[in-house]
Amino acid sequence: MSRCLISKAEVQGFIERCMMAVGTKQHHACSLAEVLVEGDHRGHYSHGLNRMGQCGAGSSSLHLHVSFKDMYVKDIQSGICAKDGEPVVEKESAATALVDGKNLLGPVVGNFCMNLAIKKAKEVGIGWVVAHGSNHYGIAGYYAMQALKENMIGMSFTNTSPLVVPTRGKECTLGTNPISMAAPAKDGDSFVLDMATSAVAIGKVELHERRGDPIPEGWGCDPQGKLTTDPKRVLSGGGLVPVGGSEATGGYKGYGLAMMVEVFCGILAGAAFSKHIRTWKETDRVANLGQCFVAINPENFAPGFTDRMSDLMSIHRGLDPADTDTPVLAPGDPERMNIDQCEEMGGIPYHINVINYMNECAKKIGANPLLPCDQLISN
Amino acid sequence: MSRCLISKAEVQGFIERCMMAVGTKQHHACSLAEVLVEGDHRGHYSHGLNRMGQCGAGSSSLHLHVSFKDMYVKDIQSGICAKDGEPVVEKESAATALVDGKNLLGPVVGNFCMNLAIKKAKEVGIGWVVAHGSNHYGIAGYYAMQALKENMIGMSFTNTSPLVVPTRGKECTLGTNPISMAAPAKDGDSFVLDMATSAVAIGKVELHERRGDPIPEGWGCDPQGKLTTDPKRVLSGGGLVPVGGSEATGGYKGYGLAMMVEVFCGILAGAAFSKHIRTWKETDRVANLGQCFVAINPENFAPGFTDRMSDLMSIHRGLDPADTDTPVLAPGDPERMNIDQCEEMGGIPYHINVINYMNECAKKIGANPLLPCDQLISN
Repeated sequence: MSRCLISKAEVQGFIERCMMAVGTKQHHACSLAEVLVEGDHRGHYSHGLNRMGQCGAGSSSLHLHVSFKDMYVKDIQSGICAKDGEPVVEKESAATALVDGKNLLGPVVGNFCMNLAIKKAKEVGIGWVVAHGSNHYGIAGYYAMQALKENMIGMSFTNTSPLVVPTRGKECTLGTNPISMAAPAKDGDSFVLDMATSAVAIGKVELHERRGDPIPEGWGCDPQGKLTTDPKRVLSGGGLVPVGGSEATGGYKGYGLAMMVEVFCGILAGAAFSKHIRTWKETDRVANLGQCFVAINPENFAPGFTDRMSDLMSIHRGLDPADTDTPVLAPGDPERMNIDQCEEMGGIPYHINVINYMNECAKKIGANPLLPCDQLISN
Repeated sequence: MSRCLISKAEVQGFIERCMMAVGTKQHHACSLAEVLVEGDHRGHYSHGLNRMGQCGAGSSSLHLHVSFKDMYVKDIQSGICAKDGEPVVEKESAATALVDGKNLLGPVVGNFCMNLAIKKAKEVGIGWVVAHGSNHYGIAGYYAMQALKENMIGMSFTNTSPLVVPTRGKECTLGTNPISMAAPAKDGDSFVLDMATSAVAIGKVELHERRGDPIPEGWGCDPQGKLTTDPKRVLSGGGLVPVGGSEATGGYKGYGLAMMVEVFCGILAGAAFSKHIRTWKETDRVANLGQCFVAINPENFAPGFTDRMSDLMSIHRGLDPADTDTPVLAPGDPERMNIDQCEEMGGIPYHINVINYMNECAKKIGANPLLPCDQLISN
């Protein structure tokens, strides 16, 4: 498999150019590009330039992929996502706000809300901001991590199109509804939890299907609601299961958490929710996603927060592992390792097919210059 | 198995009398009794008068049980838990507070904090209150549910003694750290999530061990950190695993959630945390637990909150189940069914051994009258 190294700045500029070529405002394009580049940099290719980067599949299975171009460029081109206007505060208190995202790009809404939450947390210790009328906003952790710059705890939640089957059911009624939470530790270290409330992402099931591999029991169910190890059955009429897997192993807890996220998002914000949200990958109507952004200022609580955070993480990182090959990690460590690898290599590695595909798209919409593919690496 | 029906009022009075017999103030005893009775009423006997009620085991395995008497009465008797004083607000803003629980009974601290959070949410839409210097506070959901009376969303979190082994580790470093969240729906209906972030409670593993049954894979691990179906290995040197089970099925998510709860509790409040918390069932030193209480006022967000909540729950309760014998439930429904059963029977059913054991204890500390055992039921 041939991969191509591209610097963060190059990816950033490329995404901005593509988005602006279809009429996106410059600072909206910049917001989107920043979130997507961060997704790739952290190793979450499913939430970056193209989820295809991760799997190395050929064009035959392109129908399974949703690239930045397929999703964000198309949404602006078709007009299903708005390019004009800015988010608006509809209701506000010292500590809370309800925002109308005006159907703008998710990261535009997300940055607006997270900044507002941080501002409120500076004043009264906490800011809890929810938005309706939003769109896909990339990795949830991006917004939670904004709070780290102000030495605050950040949280972010979003609802998403139904892909998850509730415990005892056989129909998808909930999204992968992520929970993210970031907290600052000493010397720039941080805790970053960013997790779907499903057992795994849909992309992992797709990857196994393309490889012809079975999936572990506890990832997904068939159209009858029974756990299956056949990825094809999950993808055709079945669905993901909540974290915890079957009812016996605690899947009802993941189901409850996915519902909790929905309460914070669609229900509290008055957005679309549960199975009222449009089907995954169908963009026949506006998404009207609900999202929730929280900032908490540790200075309003007990002194010494970052010392205790560092101690908590050291306790875990320093544990004797069950298997010496796999050390105990703290939330955020796998992403930190991916970032370190990128820094060492001098860029983010993408599959050559992704680059070619993205460049073809860019040509069609008249975005220039294209992504460079002169830095090939093999592994 | 012989069980004995006792009314809520009788259990309430009995617990109050026992606690007052060892010197607890009347309103502190009342707070504790209310939480424990509510635990039993909801079917969570592990957090009520006596966890033994649920398992029907003989006296030979009494060493495995922790009764209200063993925990709360003993803590007051020994002086390891304070009986004098009231919780104190140490730091406060319009939306936040840091509380010193003064080592009082957990429910005394919990009620104080939750009331404060609700008061703040009435004023600025949200109240986020954390306490250090607290003790076991019963079911987390009790505090979250207080917010329902004010048509608000409630949340509560607590850290607990280490019983959970982090993903890839082999040592218990985290408690079962529960997440609870309650939200009001129409006509008195409500969403009540109250879940440990471990796959199951330790009591469920103990129950299988006593019965000589294996446990499902994904509940606990052995002293080497490997998943095991042998409950003995979990209870002797192993530990519970986070919800999600093994790393492959998403156990690292449960691990991350348990850490998140610890950040809200021990870390934010400046209480004991992680493996610095005293060992489970050992009361050689004060617990200094950290707890977090949140109230959110839906009126500060989009209108129509309870309508959407009811719709969300109807969507799920109305789903075609995978198995017609097990309908799809909403969080809180199993507890509601247990409450309905109690109402129908006219009391809470306890194993006769529990009643006899509790009455023996009551005699020793001079609490009168004892629990009645004239209403026997068999099943």
